[in-house]
Amino acid sequence: MRNLTLLTDLYQLTMGQGYFAEGKHEQLAAFDIFFRPNKLITYSVAAGFDQAAEYLENLSFTDDDIAYLRSLGIFREDFLAYLRKLRFTGDVVSVKEGEIVFPYEPILTVKAPMIQAQLVETALLTFVNHQTLIASKAAKICAQAGGGVMEFGLRRAQGADAGIYGARAAIIGGCVGTSNVLAGKMFSVPVSGTMAHSWVMNFPTELEAFRAYARSFPENCLLLVDTYDTLKSGVPNAIRVFKELRESGYEPKGIRLDSGDLAYLSKEARKMLDEAGFPKAIICASGDLDEYSVRSLKEQGAKIDSWGIGTKLITSADMPALGGVYKLCAVFEDGKEIPKIKLSDTTEKITNPGMKEVWRLYDRETGKAVADLITREGETIDAPLEIFHPVETWKRMTLTDFSVRKLREPLIKGGKRVRSSLPLKEIHAYFAAEYGRFWEEYTRLDVPHIYKVDLSEQLHALKSEMVRMHGKGE
Amino acid sequence: MRNLTLLTDLYQLTMGQGYFAEGKHEQLAAFDIFFRPNKLITYSVAAGFDQAAEYLENLSFTDDDIAYLRSLGIFREDFLAYLRKLRFTGDVVSVKEGEIVFPYEPILTVKAPMIQAQLVETALLTFVNHQTLIASKAAKICAQAGGGVMEFGLRRAQGADAGIYGARAAIIGGCVGTSNVLAGKMFSVPVSGTMAHSWVMNFPTELEAFRAYARSFPENCLLLVDTYDTLKSGVPNAIRVFKELRESGYEPKGIRLDSGDLAYLSKEARKMLDEAGFPKAIICASGDLDEYSVRSLKEQGAKIDSWGIGTKLITSADMPALGGVYKLCAVFEDGKEIPKIKLSDTTEKITNPGMKEVWRLYDRETGKAVADLITREGETIDAPLEIFHPVETWKRMTLTDFSVRKLREPLIKGGKRVRSSLPLKEIHAYFAAEYGRFWEEYTRLDVPHIYKVDLSEQLHALKSEMVRMHGKGE
Repeated sequence: MRNLTLLTDLYQLTMGQGYFAEGKHEQLAAFDIFFRPNKLITYSVAAGFDQAAEYLENLSFTDDDIAYLRSLGIFREDFLAYLRKLRFTGDVVSVKEGEIVFPYEPILTVKAPMIQAQLVETALLTFVNHQTLIASKAAKICAQAGGGVMEFGLRRAQGADAGIYGARAAIIGGCVGTSNVLAGKMFSVPVSGTMAHSWVMNFPTELEAFRAYARSFPENCLLLVDTYDTLKSGVPNAIRVFKELRESGYEPKGIRLDSGDLAYLSKEARKMLDEAGFPKAIICASGDLDEYSVRSLKEQGAKIDSWGIGTKLITSADMPALGGVYKLCAVFEDGKEIPKIKLSDTTEKITNPGMKEVWRLYDRETGKAVADLITREGETIDAPLEIFHPVETWKRMTLTDFSVRKLREPLIKGGKRVRSSLPLKEIHAYFAAEYGRFWEEYTRLDVPHIYKVDLSEQLHALKSEMVRMHGKGE
Repeated sequence: MRNLTLLTDLYQLTMGQGYFAEGKHEQLAAFDIFFRPNKLITYSVAAGFDQAAEYLENLSFTDDDIAYLRSLGIFREDFLAYLRKLRFTGDVVSVKEGEIVFPYEPILTVKAPMIQAQLVETALLTFVNHQTLIASKAAKICAQAGGGVMEFGLRRAQGADAGIYGARAAIIGGCVGTSNVLAGKMFSVPVSGTMAHSWVMNFPTELEAFRAYARSFPENCLLLVDTYDTLKSGVPNAIRVFKELRESGYEPKGIRLDSGDLAYLSKEARKMLDEAGFPKAIICASGDLDEYSVRSLKEQGAKIDSWGIGTKLITSADMPALGGVYKLCAVFEDGKEIPKIKLSDTTEKITNPGMKEVWRLYDRETGKAVADLITREGETIDAPLEIFHPVETWKRMTLTDFSVRKLREPLIKGGKRVRSSLPLKEIHAYFAAEYGRFWEEYTRLDVPHIYKVDLSEQLHALKSEMVRMHGKGE
């Protein structure tokens, strides 16, 4: 277990000393993690809470950490002594991993003594931003592929953790496996991979390379056929080896294409395999793919059974950061909540104050999700319910026959984890089931409908009042 | 020290077992890391070799790793027993960290028994691709800022390592510090940061928040002035606290702007600070900046002394992967080199075969770099030298008065590190000195000249011959 307690921005510690000096460090405060709209975020798949919980449970400055902080020459000894004993003692609620979430929803809320709540901001954002980003990208790609997507991006990942936790997130979003062996071991997920071009180049001929591989892996023989000439050399040599395999009592797995016109080559290769008596041999494709190229290949009728997706998945290349933020929503005095708001000239950037709940409303007839609703903590939801757009408040809708579900639940209470880590398979299954409850209009790639995330009357009233007061104040 | 031995693609291990079964696993082989041209790569700053060396020196499968591999059901016991004892025993040469490098140059070459050379491919690419990418992005941003750039991106990094090693790479590329405390500790680099908006929101008024901070950090008082209204409230309140500080015998550090029109606000704030008697108080700016917005702000005459750069630096947002590859260039039989080439329909994708050297040629009169030359290993370079474009071979130039330097040197010999880790300050200084030897035409942001990277006559002849032979063969 790596100790990542120092994985924070320096200002969390300077503010910590400031609060300590002012006697405010143990004041209870609450912060929400949420993200703002972006044209590429139609829906997101929340992830990273497991890593967040592990980090919080292990939070503890070592003597070595304290010595380092002392060496910076800006911290007081009494503050350093306080840090040495600091553990995370707060509460965290969050949505489930794999939950479909939308802009403005507080997907995680930390309630803890101010100094702790600030200290953990940076690392929590790092984990949740990263894994949610990659899980969401994977979900988009897998939706286009319709299954069979493998994560192949480790060599292009932004460091080891990006590869490891990126693979984890990719599985949550729908990938069926990863090439990353360490991720496979850590998270018990299927690993896949057979050979690279260098294998083929390392034998006098392609045929000899294929035969050698078949000797070693007769039960798992998937051959890379594009090293020299896919249709003239690669596929014919593969078929020859597949026939030899079958004579020895083994059925081949299939072939992989890693370059060239994947639509054309896959269709031709399919015909050749079928004609040779190998209709069950799969065709795997890889090479700089993403949700758009996968869709295009499907539209062209490409005969691809399995997809290896690398760089563009593991880096979320068209949007490499989610941009989630961590904002103060309340402080507590004598157990009483004092809501806090962050103002901005941009209406969309004004935060939602106070302790909140997030609810999902489902139409009873279709079972489909209709809207999400953010309320104050402790509100109840009764039919009929009038929901309205938080900015364009004239956009209203009355719901009568609906069911409702709270999206958030405790993750940590009093510093102890209360929600256990789930197998990735279960997390993905949870996401997949929930995805089925969304109309395709909300999740499609092009010009999706914007899913409604509204505020309750009470929360809207609180927010309006606080904006009005601030307008008068400062 | 984390053991990252399993941080590899599964196919490295399936190929490993294949080589093992064929008795080829201990054949010496050499692989080059290089990257191909990309419109955003005008020059790159090599980095990641320190992490690569650490990884190679620590390569060792644990019993637990072996048990996991056994559980996959595809590996033979004799192979697993071999893996258990495997260590990296090969040689690695690379350019220095901080070296300016260009497409096609082998920036690192591994020469090792085949099984080892394949096993380490993935992790080496991960480290070198990531750190080179971020060091290069930082160099571009710092060139525009002209100094004073701080790396602030941890919360948007793709996982913990992306934040930690990204901060390291950013320092190599020219950042003067990072907000990331763990990176500061691990690499002995300056850390910076003072307060967030939440600090200001946590006091009844902005003025009280500023005063509280000044009490805790009288010697390091840099105040965030944009929480409410930068010019009407933030800067006047800061000036008031600065005056109080001065009365107590301290000089203030300055202010930070994190939103709004940074050009306008910085110019107005500068005037206000100067008029109040604080011409030495610095103005720090942050908020979604990159090399283009920094340049634009400078062109508008923004009065910004220090820059906090986050998301777009730590993710290299416009190009989040370098795309470096690892290609077989030679195998050895009885100590004799047998060059290997990877063909492609795309001329630019054909690899340079055999063991190579990379040289930089400097004009003696100006001291400036003229071109890089890739030769076969063991070649010497004498004046006059005719260099030519490797594809458009009619483009030729004769050099007479030049000095020459080999860019690569041993990093690991027989599995043991022979080049020690350098302080980041020295690595950056090395980069900065070399950067000064490049004409601005090669490093500018818009439409840069393409720096020449040519092949020697001998290497070109070998490559042409191998392409010709393959054309006949396969």
